Amino acid sequence: MKNSEENMPSFEGSKKIYVPGVLHKDVRVPMREVSLSDKDMASLRVYDVTGPYTDDAVSVDVSKGLHPLRQDWILGRADVCASSDIAVQESVCLHGDFPVKRQALCAKPGQAPTQMAYARRGIITPEMEFVAIREGHDAEFVRKEVAEGRAIIPVNINHPECEPMAIGRNFLTKINSNIGNSALSSGIKEELEKMFWSVRWGADTVMDLSTGKNIRPTREWIIRNSPVPVGTVPIYQALEKVGGKVEALTWEAYRATLIEQCEQGVDYFTVHAGVLKDFVPLAKKRLTGIVSRGGSILAKWTQIHHKENFLYTHFEEICGILKMYDVAFSLGDGLRPGSTHDANDEAQFAELRILGELTQVAWKHDVQVMIEGPGHVPINKIKENMDLQLEVCHGAPFYTLGPLVVDMGAGFDHVTSAIGAAMIGSLGTAMLCYVTPKEHLALPDKEDVKEGIIVHKIAAHAADLAKGHPMAIALNNAMSKARYEFRWEDQYRLTLDPARSRRFREASLGDKQDPSARCCTMCGPDFCAMKITQEI
Amino acid sequence: MKNSEENMPSFEGSKKIYVPGVLHKDVRVPMREVSLSDKDMASLRVYDVTGPYTDDAVSVDVSKGLHPLRQDWILGRADVCASSDIAVQESVCLHGDFPVKRQALCAKPGQAPTQMAYARRGIITPEMEFVAIREGHDAEFVRKEVAEGRAIIPVNINHPECEPMAIGRNFLTKINSNIGNSALSSGIKEELEKMFWSVRWGADTVMDLSTGKNIRPTREWIIRNSPVPVGTVPIYQALEKVGGKVEALTWEAYRATLIEQCEQGVDYFTVHAGVLKDFVPLAKKRLTGIVSRGGSILAKWTQIHHKENFLYTHFEEICGILKMYDVAFSLGDGLRPGSTHDANDEAQFAELRILGELTQVAWKHDVQVMIEGPGHVPINKIKENMDLQLEVCHGAPFYTLGPLVVDMGAGFDHVTSAIGAAMIGSLGTAMLCYVTPKEHLALPDKEDVKEGIIVHKIAAHAADLAKGHPMAIALNNAMSKARYEFRWEDQYRLTLDPARSRRFREASLGDKQDPSARCCTMCGPDFCAMKITQEI
Repeated sequence: MKNSEENMPSFEGSKKIYVPGVLHKDVRVPMREVSLSDKDMASLRVYDVTGPYTDDAVSVDVSKGLHPLRQDWILGRADVCASSDIAVQESVCLHGDFPVKRQALCAKPGQAPTQMAYARRGIITPEMEFVAIREGHDAEFVRKEVAEGRAIIPVNINHPECEPMAIGRNFLTKINSNIGNSALSSGIKEELEKMFWSVRWGADTVMDLSTGKNIRPTREWIIRNSPVPVGTVPIYQALEKVGGKVEALTWEAYRATLIEQCEQGVDYFTVHAGVLKDFVPLAKKRLTGIVSRGGSILAKWTQIHHKENFLYTHFEEICGILKMYDVAFSLGDGLRPGSTHDANDEAQFAELRILGELTQVAWKHDVQVMIEGPGHVPINKIKENMDLQLEVCHGAPFYTLGPLVVDMGAGFDHVTSAIGAAMIGSLGTAMLCYVTPKEHLALPDKEDVKEGIIVHKIAAHAADLAKGHPMAIALNNAMSKARYEFRWEDQYRLTLDPARSRRFREASLGDKQDPSARCCTMCGPDFCAMKITQEI
Repeated sequence: MKNSEENMPSFEGSKKIYVPGVLHKDVRVPMREVSLSDKDMASLRVYDVTGPYTDDAVSVDVSKGLHPLRQDWILGRADVCASSDIAVQESVCLHGDFPVKRQALCAKPGQAPTQMAYARRGIITPEMEFVAIREGHDAEFVRKEVAEGRAIIPVNINHPECEPMAIGRNFLTKINSNIGNSALSSGIKEELEKMFWSVRWGADTVMDLSTGKNIRPTREWIIRNSPVPVGTVPIYQALEKVGGKVEALTWEAYRATLIEQCEQGVDYFTVHAGVLKDFVPLAKKRLTGIVSRGGSILAKWTQIHHKENFLYTHFEEICGILKMYDVAFSLGDGLRPGSTHDANDEAQFAELRILGELTQVAWKHDVQVMIEGPGHVPINKIKENMDLQLEVCHGAPFYTLGPLVVDMGAGFDHVTSAIGAAMIGSLGTAMLCYVTPKEHLALPDKEDVKEGIIVHKIAAHAADLAKGHPMAIALNNAMSKARYEFRWEDQYRLTLDPARSRRFREASLGDKQDPSARCCTMCGPDFCAMKITQEI
C-alpha cells in the first residue's frame, strides 16, 4: 500500500517550509507557504496539518510509517521505559497487523510524562515550542495555557510520529474528522485512505470510531502513518471483546482495552464517565432518547446491573493509566441531545456538571482534559451550552459535535452543523467535530469526508476571525486584496479547494475569454462593481 | 416552451391542499400536506411556494402564464384603472416578447392601492388573510404588522398571478433566489427555467438581475409565470437604455424604466438612494471599495457630475410612482462591505442611517419598505448590524445578503453565507438572499441555484426555530420522531431533497439489507444508540 497523489493531491502554488525552534534546536515546524503575485506580499504562511506527505523532499512508505519526530524528545526526558504489558504481545499475530513492531513505552514508576505535568513544573517542552511557532504565540503562553488546563497538547508518548498541536480557546479553532468502519462496511486500506484524505483537507485530529472487523490492526496502520493526533472511543473495542453483549462488559475488559490502545499510541480517549445510573431515567422524557453510541451502551449497562457506571467508579484508575502515556481525556457527552427538542435538558446538563467534577480529578493526576459537547441545539440555546461548560468545567477546552441547529437537514447536515459550529466556535469552543452530508443516513465516503471537513474548516475560520486571531485576519485580507486586484490565481490558491475554484470560474468562460480578465461571468465586464469603483 | 417534471420534480408522498379563507370566501391558500406513517399524526402541513405547478389538477401553459388569482381582489377595490403610459406600447414588438398582451393597471388619481394604505385604514385585504392562513397568524395581526411597517406584502397590482406572502421579522424567515443573465451568458428559456427551479426548491421571492440582452422580454416571461414576488434593480435596465454609459444616466431614463417595470408587474425594486455623494470618499479607505453593482454605478455618477445621487433627490417622485402600483422598496445597500475587513465601517453605516430617513418618507406615501443589508461581516460584527438597522430604520424588515462570515470561502460561499444568514435571521432579519457555490467566481448554473437555495432554507429554518415559530418546531419534531422510530420513508419526505436523502441511504445498503432496517451504515445494527436506548 502506497500513499498517492490521489489521496493527497498537492497544493497549487505552495511549498512546504520549516520554521526552526529557538529554545529547542531540533524543533522544525512545518508550514505551507503560498506564493502570491501581490507586490506588497510575495507569500503567505498558513497553518499546515498534512505532515511529511506534502513535502516533496520526503518519500513515505506507509508500511513503515512516518518518521518519529518526537522520539528524541520523549526519550530525552528520561521518565519513560519499555512497557512489558501483556496486551501488546497478545495481538502480534492478528491478521492484517502493521508489519513493523514497535516497543511500547510507558512512564517509569512514579513519573508523569504528560505535557500538563511538565507545564506545571515550568518546563517549556519542544512540543510546546512547536505549538507556539505554529500559532504565532510565545512559548511561555502555551506553557501557561497547558498548565492551567485551558489547552491540551494531545500527544501520546507512543505516537512519536505526531506533530504537536494545541486544542484550546486561545488557539486556532481545530476540527476533527471521524473515520472508522462499522460492521456493515469498510476495510483497513479504505480507512487509511480516509485518514490521508482527512489531513489533506485540513483535519487537525482524526477519530477512529471503528466498530467492525480488525479494529486493532486498522488503528495501528492509522497511528503509524498519522501526522495528527488520533482519538478513539475505547468502549467500542471493549464491547467487541466481550462478544458485543453490553451486559458482559466489565471494568477488566475495558481496562485491558485502554492499556492496549495507550500502548498503540492513541492520543485521546472519549470516556463516557458522566452517564450516571440516575441520569438515565431523565432521558426517558426525551423525543430521541440517547443518541451517543457510548452513552447508550453505558446507560444500558447501568440499568441491567443496577450499578453505577464503571467508568465513573473507576475514574481515578483510568487517570492513573492515561497519565503513564500522556493520553488526554475527551470526556464524552453520552447524554447529548439528538434533537433540538431535547437540547439543554436536565439529562444533558446533569452529565455536564459531572464532567466538570471529573475534570478536576484528572487534573489532580496531571492528565489533560477536554469536554465533549452537543449535538442538536437550536441557535437560541447555543450560548447557554458554552457558558455553562466554561463555568462548570473550569475552563477545560470544549469539543463539540456541530451543534446541528435543525433536525430536518438530512442530506445537508454538514451545513446544519457548520452553522452551529461557527457560532459556538466564535463563543470559545476549541475543536469542532465535523459532520458530513451523509449524517443520519449512511457512513460517509471520501467525497462526503472532504465536504464535511471543508465546511467545518470554514466554520473554524469564521470563529477565528470573530475572535480576532491574526492568522485568520491575514488570510482573509490576503484573499480580499487578491479579489479586488483581480489576481485570480492568487484567489484560487488561497481557497480551501483551489482546483474547484479554478474549475468553477474557468468552465464558465468561453473559448475567447481571457482567464485573467478583470471580471467574471457573474456580472460581466460592464457591471463589475469593483472595476467601476476603481475607475472612480 | 412547456414546464416539465425536469424543472419542477414532484414532491414524494405529498399532495397539494387548499385552506379556504373565512373573511374572504375566494381566498384559497395552498399548502403541501406530507403524508406520514406516524400513528399519532397522519400528515404534516408545510408552507408551500411552488404555486399551481405542483397541483396535479392544474396544467400550466407557460406561454399563457398563470391564472391571475388576485385579479378580482384588485379590481374589486375599485381604486385602479387602465394605464395609458407610453412605456408599455414602446416594447410591444421586441424580439422574444411574451405572446399574450395585458392591459397594465395603475391607481386612479388620488388613490393608493397599496397593502400598507389598506392596512392603515383598518382593512384586512384578501392578501392579508392569505398570508395569515399561510403562516398560522390572526388576520388582524398581519394587518397591524403591515400598517406599522414591520412587514411587507410585496404584490404589484400588475402581478395578479402572485400568491401573497409576507416579509417581516414576526413571520417565517424568507429567502430570495437571484436569477438573471449577464452580458456573457444565458437566454430567456434558461432564466425561466431557473425561476421554476428556484420556487421548486423553496425560494420565497426571485430577483431578476439581468444586465444582458432581452432584459424586458425575459422579465415578462418570468413575471407571467411566477407564483412568487419578483424583484429587480431598475438601474441596470436604465443603464442599458443609455448605452451602458454611467455618465449618460438621467432621472428621466430611470423614471421611464421604473414605470415600465411597474406596469409589467415587478413586486419590489432595489433602489440605491442612500449612496450619497459625500459618502463615496469614505469607501476609499476600504480594502475592497464598493461591491454593489448599483452602488458603484451611482457612486461613479455622483463623482462624474459632482451632483447628489438622483435617486435621493427624486425620492419623493419615486414614492409617488411606486404607490400607484403597490411596488415595495428594497432600499439598496450600495455601500455594503465586500470583505470582512470593511464590515461595519463609516461608509456602510452612514448609508444605513439615510435608508432609515427614506423609510419614513416612503411610509408617508403609504409605500411598503424593506432595507437591504450586507455583505461580508465577521460573526462578531453581525449583531451590531441588526441592532442598528432596527433602531435607525424604525422596524422596517431587513433583507440581507448572507452575511458571508469569511472572505476565503470561494467555492463554498453558499456555506459561508448560510452561517451568517442563520445568525442574523435568528436576530430578526426577515429575508435572506441566497448565495451559491459559484459566488465570486462565476454565474451559477441550475445545480448551484439548488444548492444555494437549500442551504439558505436551512438557515431560515434555523432562524425560525431559534425564534420559536410553531411551524418550524412542528417540522423539526416530526423529523426527530420519525428518526427515533426508524420511519425512513417519513424522514426522506420531511427533508428538503427527498430523492437525495433516499439515494444517500439506499446506495449504502448491500443487496441483502432491508431498506426499512432499524439502523443505518453509520453505526451498523449493533451500535445504534437509538435502538439500544429503546431496549433499556
